[in-house]
Amino acid sequence: MVFTGSNLPAVGEYNQTVVLDAIRRHPHGSTRSKLATFTGLSSMTVANVCRRLLASGLVEERGTHVNGPGKPAAILRLNPGGGFAIGVHIDPAVVTYVLVDLAGEVRDHTRSGTPSAQDPESVIDEMARSIDALITTSGVDRSRLLGIGIATPGPVNIEDGIVLNPPMLPHWHRVPLRTALSAATGLPVLLEKDVTAAAVAELWYAEPSDSRDFAFMYYGTGLGTGIAVAGEVVRGISSNAGDPGHMTVDPEGPLCVCGRRGCVGYSVVPRALIEKAQSLGILDGKLAPGAEGIPQIDEAFTRLAALAEAGDAPAHAVIADAARQLARAVVVIVNLLDIERVIFGGPFWSRVAPIVLDVLPGVVRSDPALVPPHEVRFTESVIPVDVAAVGAASLVFDSTFSPRPSTLLIAAG
Amino acid sequence: MVFTGSNLPAVGEYNQTVVLDAIRRHPHGSTRSKLATFTGLSSMTVANVCRRLLASGLVEERGTHVNGPGKPAAILRLNPGGGFAIGVHIDPAVVTYVLVDLAGEVRDHTRSGTPSAQDPESVIDEMARSIDALITTSGVDRSRLLGIGIATPGPVNIEDGIVLNPPMLPHWHRVPLRTALSAATGLPVLLEKDVTAAAVAELWYAEPSDSRDFAFMYYGTGLGTGIAVAGEVVRGISSNAGDPGHMTVDPEGPLCVCGRRGCVGYSVVPRALIEKAQSLGILDGKLAPGAEGIPQIDEAFTRLAALAEAGDAPAHAVIADAARQLARAVVVIVNLLDIERVIFGGPFWSRVAPIVLDVLPGVVRSDPALVPPHEVRFTESVIPVDVAAVGAASLVFDSTFSPRPSTLLIAAG
Repeated sequence: MVFTGSNLPAVGEYNQTVVLDAIRRHPHGSTRSKLATFTGLSSMTVANVCRRLLASGLVEERGTHVNGPGKPAAILRLNPGGGFAIGVHIDPAVVTYVLVDLAGEVRDHTRSGTPSAQDPESVIDEMARSIDALITTSGVDRSRLLGIGIATPGPVNIEDGIVLNPPMLPHWHRVPLRTALSAATGLPVLLEKDVTAAAVAELWYAEPSDSRDFAFMYYGTGLGTGIAVAGEVVRGISSNAGDPGHMTVDPEGPLCVCGRRGCVGYSVVPRALIEKAQSLGILDGKLAPGAEGIPQIDEAFTRLAALAEAGDAPAHAVIADAARQLARAVVVIVNLLDIERVIFGGPFWSRVAPIVLDVLPGVVRSDPALVPPHEVRFTESVIPVDVAAVGAASLVFDSTFSPRPSTLLIAAG
Repeated sequence: MVFTGSNLPAVGEYNQTVVLDAIRRHPHGSTRSKLATFTGLSSMTVANVCRRLLASGLVEERGTHVNGPGKPAAILRLNPGGGFAIGVHIDPAVVTYVLVDLAGEVRDHTRSGTPSAQDPESVIDEMARSIDALITTSGVDRSRLLGIGIATPGPVNIEDGIVLNPPMLPHWHRVPLRTALSAATGLPVLLEKDVTAAAVAELWYAEPSDSRDFAFMYYGTGLGTGIAVAGEVVRGISSNAGDPGHMTVDPEGPLCVCGRRGCVGYSVVPRALIEKAQSLGILDGKLAPGAEGIPQIDEAFTRLAALAEAGDAPAHAVIADAARQLARAVVVIVNLLDIERVIFGGPFWSRVAPIVLDVLPGVVRSDPALVPPHEVRFTESVIPVDVAAVGAASLVFDSTFSPRPSTLLIAAG
C-alpha cells in the first residue's frame, strides 16, 4: 500500500457526494446557505454542485424559506425518484427481491423459494426473470435504475462475484452470480455477505447524530456480525468479515461442526432453539437434519416464539438462555472493538426481540468481563423487515453516492 | 456524523504528507520524477512540496541519479535527524524510555522500576526527570523534538489523557498523565494503550508491500490485540479497543476474574504458565498473588522458557498448550475481521516465540472453525525489542506526518 496524492478534479467529485449526502440526511429540505454550513464549503461551490445535482434529477427544489427581508431561499430536497436500486437477498429458504427508491422506500417486492443451484444457469435465468417482472410491475423508469445488489450468506469471493459453498446453501458451489446476472439483466451487479449489506444499510439510513461505530448482530438461519468502524463497514481482505460463530459461549452446549461445544453460531440460532424445545417437549415433532430441515424452521420458530410471548415458562427460558449466551459474544466483540452500539436485526430477529431485549442488555452491562469504560446501547435495525434485501439495494446507492475521503486520492498508477 | 467537503489548502497539506511518506518508505532515496510516479502528483506539485520539505530539514538531497544524457536527477532521502520523538512504555514492572529519530533508530534509552502511583505528582516528576536526562545524554537538538508518546496498559481515558485503573497497575487510579507531563516537559504528549501503540508502529514501519490489515497479538504481562483495518488502527470510540481477554479458549482452564473458566487473557499469560509449571513441579517456588508477584514473573518466565528450549518435555508442553489456546483466539479474531496477517510481539514474546511459531500456525490452519477462504500468515513484529516504547514514539511521528485522507476534509463548523 502506497499513498497517492489528491488534486482538484478529485475534490470536485467528492464535494458533490458530500452535498448530496447533506441534502439526503435532512429530509425536510435545506437551503443552499444551510448546506454551506453543514459541509464547510463556500457558497459558490455549493451553488455549483447544486446546479449539477438539479440537472441530474437527483435533487429537486421544493418551496422556499423566508428569512429576513431578502429574496426567499429555495429549499432543496432529495428527489426520491431520482434513482432506484434492486436488492436481492438469497436466504437458505427464500429469495427476496425489493425495488427501493433513493429515499429508501420499498416501491415493490417479491419472494420465491430459494432454488437449488445444481443447475446454476437456470438459477440465473429465474433471478433475471423475477427482477424483470419486479421492474415492470413497479412502473419505474428503467433509465433511472442504478444497479442490483445481492446479499448472500458467506463465504463469498467478491472479486469474481462468486458465492462459494456456504454451509447454509446446499449445492451452491462457486456460483458466478455477479457476471452472469449482470449479463442477463444489463445492469451493474454488486455482491456482499448478508451481514455486510445489513451494516451498509444501517450507515446509509443513519441519522446525522447516530454513532457510526457498531456491531450489527444479524440473526438469520445463522448468526453474523456486521461491523462498522468510524463510519466504514469492515469487509476484511476477502469481504468475508463478520463471522462470530465459533466463539465459545456455553462450554456444556451442543457439539459444533468444529469439534468444540457451545459455539455461539451453533447454540443460539433458530435450529438450536427449536431442537432444544423439541427435546424438552415444548414443541412436538423433530427437525429433519441438514438442508432438509430448513423449510421447517420458520414455522417451528414462530410457534416457539409465540409460546414464549404467551407466557409459557419453559419456552421463555429457551429464548432467554440463548439471549444470555448471545450476551457473552456481545461482550467479547465490544471488548475487542470498543464500540458503544449493538444493533439487532435479520430474518428471525423480530420474533425473539422482546425477550432478547429484555434479558441481554442487563446481562452484558453486569458482566464483570465487560472492559470499555462507557455505556453500551442496544437498538433494533432501522429496517424492520427485509434488512438484507434493502441492505443489498443500499449497496448500490452507497457505492454510487456515499462520500468517501478515499475517493479524494489519485488512483495509483 | 456529518461529512464535510474539501478544498485546496487541505489538499496542499495532505500532499505534503504523501510525498514525505513516499520518501520515507524508500530508504535508498527517490528522484522527484519517481516521487511523481509513486504519488500520482504532477511534477510541479512534487517540486513545490520537495522545496518545502527540504527547507524544513525533514528531507535532504544525497547524490544524484544519472538516467540518459540529461542533467543528473537529485536523490531525496529522509533526514533521520530532521525530527525526534520520545516514547515511554509504562509496564507493570518497568518503565522504558526511548528517544527515536525520524528514521526509526533508537538513539538512546533508559529504564526504571514502575513507580507506585499513590503519589501521582512524584510519578510525573520522576518521569519528567528521566525524559530530561535522556534528551541531555543523547545530545539531540531539543528544537527538533516533536513530542512524547506514552503507551500504558488499558483502560485509558484518551480525551483527558488519563490512565484509569488498569488491573495490572495497582494504585494507578485516574492519573492525569498527559496534561501533567506536558506541563512538566513543555512538549506535546500523546497517550495510547500499549497494544494500540504497537499496531501504530507496525503501520509506521511497514514496507510498501506489507498488508495493512492485521491483528497484533501483544504478549505482555497481559494479552492484548492491536487491530489494523485498511491501514488505520482500530482505536474504538474510547480508544480502548483491543481486549481479547475474555474469549473462552479452554473450558476446563483456570477460573478467571469474570467468573468463567479458560479466558484466553487468563490462561495463556506468563503468570498462568508459571503457575502451571510450579504446580507440575517444573519450576520450584510459588508466585506471590496479585501485584506482589509481578516482579517475580520475569525471572520465572525466563527459566521456564529456557527449560522448554533446552528440551524439557513438560516445560515445552506448558508453552505448546498455551500456543494451542492462543490459536483458538486467533481463529475467532480472523473469522470476525477477515484479516490475513497475525503479528506477534510484546515484552514476553521473544522467549516463547520459537515454540509458539512452531505450534500455532498449524493449529490455526487446520482448525475446522477457520472461515475465511485464504491463507493466514504469521509474522513477528518489525520491532523486536521495546515495541510498545518505540510504538509510543511512533504515535508522535504518525500523528504529525502520516497521510490521512480524512485530513483532506474541512473541519466541521
